[in-house]
Amino acid sequence: MLERLFGPRSIALIGVSGEPLSIGRQVLRNLTGHGYRGTVHLVNPRLAEIEGIRTYPSILDVPGEVDLADVAVRGPLVPDVLEACGRKGVKFAIIHAAGFKEAGPEGRELEDRILRIARAGGIRLCGPNSQGIQCSEPSYPVYANFTFVPMPPGRVSILAQSGGVGETLKLHLYRAGLGLRMYASYGNEADLGLAEFLDYFGNDPGTRAVMLHVETLKDPAKVLAAAARVAARKPVLALKAGRTPEGWKAAASHTGALLEGEDSAEAVFEKAGVLRFRTQEEMVAAAIGFSEQPCAKGRRVAVLTNTGGPAVIAVDECMAAGLRAADLGPETRAALGRVLPPAASLANPVDVLATAGPEPFGSAMDILLADPAVDSLLLVFVTPAFVDSPAVARRLAEAAAGSAKPVVSQVITLDPAGEAVRTLRGSGLPVFEFAESAARVLAALSDYPALAARAGAPAAPAAVRPSGIAEILGRRRKGDAYLSAFEAAKLLDLFGIPAAPPIPIAGRDGLEAAAARAGFPLVLKADSPAIVHKTEAGAVILGLKTSDELRVAFDRLTAAVKDDPEARLYVQSQAVGGREVICGLKANPGLPPTLVFGLGGVWVEALSDIRSRLGPLTAEEAADMIRSIRGFPVLDGSRGLPPADLAALDRILVRLSELGTAVPEIREADLNPVLVFEAGRGALVVDARIRVAL
Amino acid sequence: MLERLFGPRSIALIGVSGEPLSIGRQVLRNLTGHGYRGTVHLVNPRLAEIEGIRTYPSILDVPGEVDLADVAVRGPLVPDVLEACGRKGVKFAIIHAAGFKEAGPEGRELEDRILRIARAGGIRLCGPNSQGIQCSEPSYPVYANFTFVPMPPGRVSILAQSGGVGETLKLHLYRAGLGLRMYASYGNEADLGLAEFLDYFGNDPGTRAVMLHVETLKDPAKVLAAAARVAARKPVLALKAGRTPEGWKAAASHTGALLEGEDSAEAVFEKAGVLRFRTQEEMVAAAIGFSEQPCAKGRRVAVLTNTGGPAVIAVDECMAAGLRAADLGPETRAALGRVLPPAASLANPVDVLATAGPEPFGSAMDILLADPAVDSLLLVFVTPAFVDSPAVARRLAEAAAGSAKPVVSQVITLDPAGEAVRTLRGSGLPVFEFAESAARVLAALSDYPALAARAGAPAAPAAVRPSGIAEILGRRRKGDAYLSAFEAAKLLDLFGIPAAPPIPIAGRDGLEAAAARAGFPLVLKADSPAIVHKTEAGAVILGLKTSDELRVAFDRLTAAVKDDPEARLYVQSQAVGGREVICGLKANPGLPPTLVFGLGGVWVEALSDIRSRLGPLTAEEAADMIRSIRGFPVLDGSRGLPPADLAALDRILVRLSELGTAVPEIREADLNPVLVFEAGRGALVVDARIRVAL
Repeated sequence: MLERLFGPRSIALIGVSGEPLSIGRQVLRNLTGHGYRGTVHLVNPRLAEIEGIRTYPSILDVPGEVDLADVAVRGPLVPDVLEACGRKGVKFAIIHAAGFKEAGPEGRELEDRILRIARAGGIRLCGPNSQGIQCSEPSYPVYANFTFVPMPPGRVSILAQSGGVGETLKLHLYRAGLGLRMYASYGNEADLGLAEFLDYFGNDPGTRAVMLHVETLKDPAKVLAAAARVAARKPVLALKAGRTPEGWKAAASHTGALLEGEDSAEAVFEKAGVLRFRTQEEMVAAAIGFSEQPCAKGRRVAVLTNTGGPAVIAVDECMAAGLRAADLGPETRAALGRVLPPAASLANPVDVLATAGPEPFGSAMDILLADPAVDSLLLVFVTPAFVDSPAVARRLAEAAAGSAKPVVSQVITLDPAGEAVRTLRGSGLPVFEFAESAARVLAALSDYPALAARAGAPAAPAAVRPSGIAEILGRRRKGDAYLSAFEAAKLLDLFGIPAAPPIPIAGRDGLEAAAARAGFPLVLKADSPAIVHKTEAGAVILGLKTSDELRVAFDRLTAAVKDDPEARLYVQSQAVGGREVICGLKANPGLPPTLVFGLGGVWVEALSDIRSRLGPLTAEEAADMIRSIRGFPVLDGSRGLPPADLAALDRILVRLSELGTAVPEIREADLNPVLVFEAGRGALVVDARIRVAL
Repeated sequence: MLERLFGPRSIALIGVSGEPLSIGRQVLRNLTGHGYRGTVHLVNPRLAEIEGIRTYPSILDVPGEVDLADVAVRGPLVPDVLEACGRKGVKFAIIHAAGFKEAGPEGRELEDRILRIARAGGIRLCGPNSQGIQCSEPSYPVYANFTFVPMPPGRVSILAQSGGVGETLKLHLYRAGLGLRMYASYGNEADLGLAEFLDYFGNDPGTRAVMLHVETLKDPAKVLAAAARVAARKPVLALKAGRTPEGWKAAASHTGALLEGEDSAEAVFEKAGVLRFRTQEEMVAAAIGFSEQPCAKGRRVAVLTNTGGPAVIAVDECMAAGLRAADLGPETRAALGRVLPPAASLANPVDVLATAGPEPFGSAMDILLADPAVDSLLLVFVTPAFVDSPAVARRLAEAAAGSAKPVVSQVITLDPAGEAVRTLRGSGLPVFEFAESAARVLAALSDYPALAARAGAPAAPAAVRPSGIAEILGRRRKGDAYLSAFEAAKLLDLFGIPAAPPIPIAGRDGLEAAAARAGFPLVLKADSPAIVHKTEAGAVILGLKTSDELRVAFDRLTAAVKDDPEARLYVQSQAVGGREVICGLKANPGLPPTLVFGLGGVWVEALSDIRSRLGPLTAEEAADMIRSIRGFPVLDGSRGLPPADLAALDRILVRLSELGTAVPEIREADLNPVLVFEAGRGALVVDARIRVAL
């Protein structure tokens, strides 16, 4: 679909100027300087020729077909240019100019206008506010971008919302001696957006990994679908900027996103199986790893070094990133003992000592890579003045090149472009400046296979909408409202979620009958549209053990709600024991609802030990959410308490997810608390607040 | 004290060999290649000359005084060499060889032996297992180290337990265009250790900041004292390696530390006001900041950029590191509006746009640095192909150089050694590859002043040992034991720590009297040396409201402990309400005790929301501990609960610290739970377990 954008047979540079230090001229230099093989036409109404190339006054004067127009005119001139492009039959246009939706209401209008013109003319737009696109395909390189980083061919493609970040990412691939496969600065996404580009890169056989820089998602649902498709086949790495309120504010003013919008990017990426990074440096390092090395089949890492201290740091960082130290078998140790000097350390990390030459060092790597207990290898290599380090590097490169296990390295050497580094990099062994970076790269190479499996796994089955829903929701007026306790209980029941049933009280005389149904001890509650937080509103009286106590409480609560005509009192059996947890559901405009799980109780809630994930949840996802809270030891029996009924909890979360999918009218559901009893004894929703919008 | 180690008038290289690729020869090259101005003597019993320099068969044949012996012989030969050095009157010796305490019992013995020889001969040792030392003092440079990184003069000194990490740190100062002031690879610390070196660097007027790499502390108390002295005057930056169990194991095998030892380094550094870092890269970046820029007077940062996306990332990372976005005043915005184009962004981050030339860009920096609402500035500077970037860099360098506020930068440019970068660095403006690094550097420059003030503040006053202690402890046998509930209560009382008093019961007939003193509701407990965790042992019966209930409970508990002759039953008034917290004390061999604070209850304990800090605590430190737990909102009134009596809690923690200092016999005290009531109503220790060792 985007073949003629990334591989245009002819390009018209519209707005290229007489000023050599200008955007259009830089695009021209990049196209010609990077071997573009198609035709470049220059459009300028005032100059007859530029850099010895003849110009045309208008795109309409250009002979032949034009696949791509690179538009470097100022924003207000873009509509006319696009109209002409449409008449000419141009297929794609890159709009570099800024000053559109990010610049306020007038810019937003201008953006809408150019989109209408493009649609009418059959043009697909990249931008506005785009640096451009690149494709390094050796048979047909295209550098239609005004940046300065050279474009040797490579295996990593980049999609960046910000050109400055895209440039930083390209720069650091280049610094590491790697090339680039494809690049798009997708700008304001007036037409073509992140999802289309991502799918295109996903289908490109030359792209081994994709890096994303995102500030705000314009169409989260489309991105979720595309990212999951691509992540199942190749690693998608993402950096979400604007993750603090201040950063988000800065991003919004910069991209023209609405500040009130939900920031769903992290949730979308998690759901889709995207590898998420916090810093540009970590992401580029991981991309280098994916470009050059296979993924790891497991999490057991061996560290091989000729200097002890950095290896300790490497071990620390590997463990912190979720890897495990490979436990070297006796055979491996014996083999190492045969090739290494007596003072060497044969346990993991294996220290061959600074004096080690090519043979012991390289043999040690051979031995470690052959050990089935080793899934990946981190090399820490200092180049001492008293060792032939280039020879060591050659031997290590040889050892690593033959392996199906990933190997990455920290090299401590004076010249970062010296022979040792060039040798290793030339053989595909990534070289980093710090052990910490290398460790995190191995972690990413070890994380991806599980993410790919998840991204490729069948989604949760579609939930069926039970027929009883209409009855529950049917009586309501349009608008937002909380369901009553009775309605909420019915809804939960329709989805098989166990809840303590609210038992209505038929006046003061009905107390005995209600109490008989609930059984003592019981709880008296008042339900009303006006009461959102029952406990805070004093609308819950706990621990009623006798009919007398119940009567006193009933009179008290009746008096308390006497001014609320909609208030209804009810009793509930009071569950004894159990640990409090919270299950929640929150609708996302344009996306599936978010499920939330956490430990309950005011103290624990204050610690925000919660996990949230986009639905619909598979059983595995629900189980993973529950097991990944920090306080999980309170539930699994390891903190002195008997194990809780996790299976019952898993079921509740999955069914809540089904409820959210089947009843999109729900804006928010808060099951709080849910009591989880000991294993085999189930779990019970004690209070549920459900808000719907009709 | 170490003047003749870092500035030796004459150096003897002992064990320098005929092999050019050897440790001794590398030291020789480094000394002569870096302009050493003293005399170098070569000692080799087999060769008459090396590199044209005559050798002596023994140190005893060397003419004149020798300040420093650089000993490159193998471990087993070291004792004889040191004996001769002692006879010669050598003042300092660097021992490069490994194979000492880190290599097992024999090595440990060898290390003890060389230390005895050195002491007998009046020699101070650096090492063994040391790379060496360096001092770049321009009038007298000394590079007595076998590493390869050049040594231009600089303002940062380095102390590294691992030579490989030391080399990495030196390398990255060098890569950033900076020099080094002093360096010591302090190795096994058989004699001279981290504390002595740190004090020496602290007293060196040429050292502006010190970087530490530490795996294990040999003498934590000495390091604590030295680090606090130095941190009060100049920033001390530390990286603790071996922070995961696997890393610690690797470090222990590498340094010869005992695995069972307490890993107190992080606690020591925190107490001393040391800036702690997790990665080498972050620490070097911060050191570059301290070397080149002033500290910030506050936490309000302005970001100035010519490319929006990286600025958003900079803002994110600044906020995550605890900085605040400077709120630019209307005057500043107006001034920016006068110099910047209309499309520029005048809010923080200020975006001058990629097309900005020297004047608007530099003026914008002038304006921001002049704003009193700005404490520090982060510059993000891309060098577009269409701008005269060297001229921009000159103008920016000029703007930053005149300011008393710190400025650091990310520069996105093709050539990391190009003119723009050289211009900025030459003017003292640090340049980093990523906005994230620059942000963290500014955070360090903003953190240090408070740490320095704390390090320089008077310590907590010495606690007085009340005379009653002897009576409480006097009756015990030698060894470890728990105090009885009665003894523990007395001890707390001596230090003014409010606790619910245990009221002894004089048999079944004494129940009424005991109950009358405690008042209902009350708690019945059994106290015995055999019972450590009362609740788990079933030795606590809560909520007794009447004499009848008490009698039943008494009979039950009496029966339960009938086989324990030391068990004593007592009652305690049952406190009503209050929030549960935990205060603890733990002795550290060779260091002051550690104080612990956290929220209580099994769920919250499982979340490990605790803070610990070395005592003795000042009131400020105690208050800071309490306020820095994640769950603090539960105590301060912001989570819907009334504010708790924080003043009472602060007092308990300070007094527990005094107790720990005044009664060093205490191994461990666990006040759990402590109930904190509403503001003004105090706090009360409900149960205390105190273990002493006599």
